Amino acid sequence: MINIGVIGYGYWGPNIVRNFNRVEGAKAPLVCDINQDNLKRAKKDYPYIEITSDYNDVISSTKIDTVAVITPVSTHFELAKKALKNGKHIFIEKPFTATVAEAEQLIELAEKKKLMIMVDHTFLFTGAVRKMKEIIDKELLGSIYYYDSMRINLGLFQPDVNVIWDLATHDFSIMDYLIDEKPVALTANGKSHVSGMEDVAYVVIYFSNNMIAHFNVNWLSPVKVRTTFIGGTKKMIVWNDIDADEKIKIYDKGIEVKNREGLYQLLVSYRAGDMWVPRIEQVEALQLEAQSFVSCIMNNKAPINDGHAGLRVVKLLEACDDSLRNKGAMVNL
Amino acid sequence: MINIGVIGYGYWGPNIVRNFNRVEGAKAPLVCDINQDNLKRAKKDYPYIEITSDYNDVISSTKIDTVAVITPVSTHFELAKKALKNGKHIFIEKPFTATVAEAEQLIELAEKKKLMIMVDHTFLFTGAVRKMKEIIDKELLGSIYYYDSMRINLGLFQPDVNVIWDLATHDFSIMDYLIDEKPVALTANGKSHVSGMEDVAYVVIYFSNNMIAHFNVNWLSPVKVRTTFIGGTKKMIVWNDIDADEKIKIYDKGIEVKNREGLYQLLVSYRAGDMWVPRIEQVEALQLEAQSFVSCIMNNKAPINDGHAGLRVVKLLEACDDSLRNKGAMVNL
Amino acid sequence: MINIGVIGYGYWGPNIVRNFNRVEGAKAPLVCDINQDNLKRAKKDYPYIEITSDYNDVISSTKIDTVAVITPVSTHFELAKKALKNGKHIFIEKPFTATVAEAEQLIELAEKKKLMIMVDHTFLFTGAVRKMKEIIDKELLGSIYYYDSMRINLGLFQPDVNVIWDLATHDFSIMDYLIDEKPVALTANGKSHVSGMEDVAYVVIYFSNNMIAHFNVNWLSPVKVRTTFIGGTKKMIVWNDIDADEKIKIYDKGIEVKNREGLYQLLVSYRAGDMWVPRIEQVEALQLEAQSFVSCIMNNKAPINDGHAGLRVVKLLEACDDSLRNKGAMVNL
Amino acid sequence: MINIGVIGYGYWGPNIVRNFNRVEGAKAPLVCDINQDNLKRAKKDYPYIEITSDYNDVISSTKIDTVAVITPVSTHFELAKKALKNGKHIFIEKPFTATVAEAEQLIELAEKKKLMIMVDHTFLFTGAVRKMKEIIDKELLGSIYYYDSMRINLGLFQPDVNVIWDLATHDFSIMDYLIDEKPVALTANGKSHVSGMEDVAYVVIYFSNNMIAHFNVNWLSPVKVRTTFIGGTKKMIVWNDIDADEKIKIYDKGIEVKNREGLYQLLVSYRAGDMWVPRIEQVEALQLEAQSFVSCIMNNKAPINDGHAGLRVVKLLEACDDSLRNKGAMVNL
Repeated sequence: MINIGVIGYGYWGPNIVRNFNRVEGAKAPLVCDINQDNLKRAKKDYPYIEITSDYNDVISSTKIDTVAVITPVSTHFELAKKALKNGKHIFIEKPFTATVAEAEQLIELAEKKKLMIMVDHTFLFTGAVRKMKEIIDKELLGSIYYYDSMRINLGLFQPDVNVIWDLATHDFSIMDYLIDEKPVALTANGKSHVSGMEDVAYVVIYFSNNMIAHFNVNWLSPVKVRTTFIGGTKKMIVWNDIDADEKIKIYDKGIEVKNREGLYQLLVSYRAGDMWVPRIEQVEALQLEAQSFVSCIMNNKAPINDGHAGLRVVKLLEACDDSLRNKGAMVNL
Repeated sequence: MINIGVIGYGYWGPNIVRNFNRVEGAKAPLVCDINQDNLKRAKKDYPYIEITSDYNDVISSTKIDTVAVITPVSTHFELAKKALKNGKHIFIEKPFTATVAEAEQLIELAEKKKLMIMVDHTFLFTGAVRKMKEIIDKELLGSIYYYDSMRINLGLFQPDVNVIWDLATHDFSIMDYLIDEKPVALTANGKSHVSGMEDVAYVVIYFSNNMIAHFNVNWLSPVKVRTTFIGGTKKMIVWNDIDADEKIKIYDKGIEVKNREGLYQLLVSYRAGDMWVPRIEQVEALQLEAQSFVSCIMNNKAPINDGHAGLRVVKLLEACDDSLRNKGAMVNL
Repeated sequence: MINIGVIGYGYWGPNIVRNFNRVEGAKAPLVCDINQDNLKRAKKDYPYIEITSDYNDVISSTKIDTVAVITPVSTHFELAKKALKNGKHIFIEKPFTATVAEAEQLIELAEKKKLMIMVDHTFLFTGAVRKMKEIIDKELLGSIYYYDSMRINLGLFQPDVNVIWDLATHDFSIMDYLIDEKPVALTANGKSHVSGMEDVAYVVIYFSNNMIAHFNVNWLSPVKVRTTFIGGTKKMIVWNDIDADEKIKIYDKGIEVKNREGLYQLLVSYRAGDMWVPRIEQVEALQLEAQSFVSCIMNNKAPINDGHAGLRVVKLLEACDDSLRNKGAMVNL
Repeated sequence: MINIGVIGYGYWGPNIVRNFNRVEGAKAPLVCDINQDNLKRAKKDYPYIEITSDYNDVISSTKIDTVAVITPVSTHFELAKKALKNGKHIFIEKPFTATVAEAEQLIELAEKKKLMIMVDHTFLFTGAVRKMKEIIDKELLGSIYYYDSMRINLGLFQPDVNVIWDLATHDFSIMDYLIDEKPVALTANGKSHVSGMEDVAYVVIYFSNNMIAHFNVNWLSPVKVRTTFIGGTKKMIVWNDIDADEKIKIYDKGIEVKNREGLYQLLVSYRAGDMWVPRIEQVEALQLEAQSFVSCIMNNKAPINDGHAGLRVVKLLEACDDSLRNKGAMVNL
């Protein structure tokens, strides 16, 4: 039985408790929050649960073997480090840490102590992302031209991170999972209008091959858009996460480049074909993620969203900050 | 009566002839193309029309007072210069010219000869753009946070221009018309996958005030997307040009920044309100544009899409090329 | 404090327990189901809850003042009658009863015993229906031409009712709430393909005035459609319940009938105008309904969805069965 | 060379002239209309065309071998009869005639004179309908449960026909083409709000097998809806004619009926699968139809939309009128 102590019962924490409680072989008997209202809510949701406002009670509890860190990113490193030192596995909210150095230290510590880190890149466990992974792994797209994501809405302004750290983190983790090719350089541009942190930003990432990636994130949009376009030589995917029934569309459409003789205009032509909407499994991603975490601990197997995956994302985020500070200058990775 | 000689009867030329013929006080009696099939088609469409494969026949015709240059951009300057020298008004396909220097020369020449230049920024005459202009001029949006445009589809690869010159030209001309604030710097990133010219590109433009603009153009997308988001302090517009019935949506939704005392999290909150879809006039934009051109000539009045508007767009396009050549470096305008 | 005993913990029962528990001044301490798995689930959800497989334990419990009947419609009458006889208020799943006679008996009994009946017409408490009620009560639509509803999907086949009793019940209760005018006759047509009960059906209802209503219900549709069109002389509503952000659209569009002189063709013309999407309050309808029920009991006030409302719906359902049995013949109401 | 004289140059006539002119081996040299403005417009569109306001000039012209009757339905019979008597083939606007008797007379006359009749059921030549025909003929749907169509918009009120004759004609002709099974009975309900003719109507058609068809037509809807659902045992089609890119969707989704032992509820279960959007050929339907007509005349071959097809549609329309006059009573076909 895996016993999980959850630090942070604000917006996301209740989902963590609920989902780990549903996993065969796991439970979440202990919740910590500095806000008394949150603790009261936890007690109302689960009358038998133990609550505390001191995170040390969680980290040092002998009844607990795993700590879920569901707090603002600025606190991740200290909490995780202490928990690892006390021999606890770590399930940690995204983004993993506030800096690359912190992420590297936590990974090292976990490896030394033979403990597990899972970074909560929930999207990797959605039916849509798993279906895209399957399609890409089967090489149905051919070689990939571009990865283009838009994630905009009226966002919750956060005191300690900008819109890239808040929203693009999702997309960086998804792209990292789907695309084998490695990023080599990026540029980030953005603007702050409200709080001093960028609330609108645009990131372009170059890869060692011909692929280009682009991310449009925005906290000031009245409409919610969640789309990713992945275009390849053979087929193209459009993922619209807002669409309940047609999340993934696969287009057998593209261009055809003919033998380069004769007039240029004749060489590139359209190829029109069918479109296909694969059935997506209807599962709660966080439920699958919780199961995966418990199973990885049981079987001592690294999860797909381990500390290294978390680190790769933080590297991109840190590079974005560098580029933003330098007027969108290209930052090598 | 305005008599228009049309050079170029490929994809767009027939629309020019048809629309000018419908304008009271104008006709297009003479068409030139180097392609005999195009000329045959012109003759079939308009049995009474005069055709030629030598553009000098148009430029020097005494029956013609206006020349429509509907040819690839690399030929614009020479054709327009000669036509202006021969005393003809110019209606010229977008983008105006291949360089800023060419545009400036044509403007100067036209002003010296007291001739009219209209650059075919057709979108300025659509019901949607005119409605947005009206809304913005009434200051319904408040001060503008961002202008974000996406224009992607399977594009006709062109031998002489990249996707920015082909597609972003539309958006630059629309933004130039809608937004009074002046751009001060831009960065452009992109990638060529097929022809040596960028077929996917992303442009960010900074303004003297807090506004930021962003353009996503792509010739390799299986789906056609034509959206522009304009977010302001008071209201926000979403323009979806693909939507037949709800092209313009105005959201009375946004964020509210409260007095900056107490905890930060309390300061920024959502404001939810109604959404409104104004009726858009159903007119053929090119028809209005043709009427406007004829009326401007008659009344000796500069059109909204005169040579200066064309030049402002070419300045942005040229700066994009600069930035692309320098790894997305910021280019001051 | 209102204490609710819930009979039936299958698909809908858990929502009833959860929502009544959240109402200030109410709780649901006792759950009954004949299925042991359902009872085990109740115990897991609420460890402190009392469970039983004998409904008499609920009906006769002195700790209980209200009984929620969340069982198949064929059992409603017996359960509700016994509960009323034992002095319990009734919250009862839709449709109210299997026959008009049963409904009338329950109403009479409740009135004699001064007890409350609320029929679970949940939709009346949605933001969308409440907004439409507000619009119609303000007479913004003018006089109403038609009410046209489509509610189709791959439906759960039910052993004891056809698709009209399952799906049109919702629409009948909504129309009954929104429209003051009274129905005078109806016809129903349909077909059974799978189970012997109609799985596809179409109902037309005539009113004392010029209004006509139409209902399209279908258990065999691969796509889920939930739309209602309400057209009036002045404005028209489209309610799309599937759309997350634009559930209610109000069109200021229609026809204009001019003075009937001269040629007919000139008399009827279009009127095009803006469209408006009012903000809909984001509340859980069942939560509001539970609050309303508790408040009605406290204040001894008849709810909008009382037994009489339930009866009016059952009258329409029964008439549909009559018409179906008679080849779609018109049935007077 | 087929020479077509066109009677009627109002809304649809110009499309007829334009499309027949484009067919190899056909031309439309003569146009008739009683409205001088329409004739002037014809002359402006085609300066070389001959015009007349007397239909006898068309019917008796020796230069003409085919007459296109593009006039209100009440005039079809007289015009077509006279043209057939003068030895002309007939291309005739839908609906074919105002009564079954008229249609039968015209068919008989044409057969006696060995002349061709084509009824302008344009939709049969759209890419969407042809694709559905292909899918149904391949028996991909299994046996068909239902055919459900909705065709609503702010309609042009017509002086001589109701909304069924105007709009459902399209759907009757499409269903007649797609579905081999024959209709055996129908009911029609509707209401007139504006002009004395029904402007809202609902038709249900029963077939010799288990299939049921339903048609919702409405001239008072602020939004334009053009959808048809065709559900079968194996697959289901949704045709949305408004959608530019995804007109036809084929769902591999449905229900599964298991062996009828044990509890009923277990017997019917969902089957979820992929969805598929086949590529639709982008052709102008009327162009294909005109080609088909010319080719049928050349090769003396009956078109799919011959007089018999027109008659089958008129039979349904006449039965709808019968049912409407009898309070929606079932009319046997």
